[in-house]
Amino acid sequence: MGDIGNRRWAIAEGYIPGDSSFEDPALISHEAACILNPGDQDANVAITLFFTDREPVGPYRVIVRARRTRHLRFNDIDDPEPVPRDTPYSSVIESDVPIVVQHSRLDSRKAEVSLLSTVAYSQG
Amino acid sequence: MGDIGNRRWAIAEGYIPGDSSFEDPALISHEAACILNPGDQDANVAITLFFTDREPVGPYRVIVRARRTRHLRFNDIDDPEPVPRDTPYSSVIESDVPIVVQHSRLDSRKAEVSLLSTVAYSQG
Amino acid sequence: MGDIGNRRWAIAEGYIPGDSSFEDPALISHEAACILNPGDQDANVAITLFFTDREPVGPYRVIVRARRTRHLRFNDIDDPEPVPRDTPYSSVIESDVPIVVQHSRLDSRKAEVSLLSTVAYSQG
Amino acid sequence: MGDIGNRRWAIAEGYIPGDSSFEDPALISHEAACILNPGDQDANVAITLFFTDREPVGPYRVIVRARRTRHLRFNDIDDPEPVPRDTPYSSVIESDVPIVVQHSRLDSRKAEVSLLSTVAYSQG
Repeated sequence: MGDIGNRRWAIAEGYIPGDSSFEDPALISHEAACILNPGDQDANVAITLFFTDREPVGPYRVIVRARRTRHLRFNDIDDPEPVPRDTPYSSVIESDVPIVVQHSRLDSRKAEVSLLSTVAYSQG
Repeated sequence: MGDIGNRRWAIAEGYIPGDSSFEDPALISHEAACILNPGDQDANVAITLFFTDREPVGPYRVIVRARRTRHLRFNDIDDPEPVPRDTPYSSVIESDVPIVVQHSRLDSRKAEVSLLSTVAYSQG
Repeated sequence: MGDIGNRRWAIAEGYIPGDSSFEDPALISHEAACILNPGDQDANVAITLFFTDREPVGPYRVIVRARRTRHLRFNDIDDPEPVPRDTPYSSVIESDVPIVVQHSRLDSRKAEVSLLSTVAYSQG
Repeated sequence: MGDIGNRRWAIAEGYIPGDSSFEDPALISHEAACILNPGDQDANVAITLFFTDREPVGPYRVIVRARRTRHLRFNDIDDPEPVPRDTPYSSVIESDVPIVVQHSRLDSRKAEVSLLSTVAYSQG
């Protein structure tokens, strides 16, 4: 089961709406990188964020335990710095073992939620 | 027609909302793995679910008949155990013959439906 | 410009909602295979539909002219037979020249529209 | 970090709704090609648009600086000509260095927003 996945992933779309219509954490506007580590070794993951008009920020260091998934909200990471709201960004996600990454967003700026998701782009 | 597809697939995103605004089964909040078996042999499919804080669960065994599609709702599988609601998970889907897998979710927690879908991640 | 694309594509998800909240054709619930033929030869495309409990139907024959795109609505194809509503299906799309295929759905069963889209799965 | 990405991308789906329910630029109906250039050289990007019933239009020339992302709205490009609204199109995106491309749409024709997104199709 360990050998599905790649070590390098990129998500070109990124945007956390600054407003939300709800206070329930599940319904707050957010973006996530859902990271699956199907293998038997913990994954040491480094995330780098790219912006329109300044140098990349990172690495954000995250561990995804062996045989675990982690739906990492970009809203919550803050070291080296929080992800700005209402601001376009992209991310590159690198791991020392094979992982699988899917991107999703929940947008609740209006009274209904909207969703998007895509498998991220991966390379060897 | 038989030789399109892969034997190993992963869906890193997974989340079944526990609430729904409707009772029509088509509009209840759900997630599906749409599995196409375009070939001439039945596909014996094994699904393993991954969670944040416990060991993987599975295999869930599913047969997709030759030249058939099966839009499998994660809401409905219950052997070895049901999929918990409001809980992040991921899935790995393995088949003995080539299949094609697409992930989708319908979220009807609010009075409108929201949809997401992506081809799953596949490997050799 | 001609050599981007593949000749075999599959869309495992497929479902045309039978209801719509609007009469504007742009807002009627529909599914589309958006087919780009970036090359200099017309593409002869054959679509086969797969169902849950009966043999595949097809081929549906479509031409996508050289250097053109065709956003083909599954709602509109009817030879050899129309695509049933409220029914899960999948599709395999084969072309004699390289094409690019993206799947999308607009669901207007409720008073708002919901959208999903994904690049289709492709092979050699 | 520089060597993730491809030089040729295609987005087969394309459609900018002509109506919007809001005047806030963030909520106007729009489509974007989110282009990440993770490398250390500026990317010279050429976009060609394909239509249903006329010859392709382009190239639209765009620069994405080294280590930057650019969420390019198709609504905003106008040289050689603006992208028509309410009109199906596709795009091919070519770069002289590796980039990563993701497609997204925000549709606000009705009083709520709907979203779709997918990694674009790429080739060597």
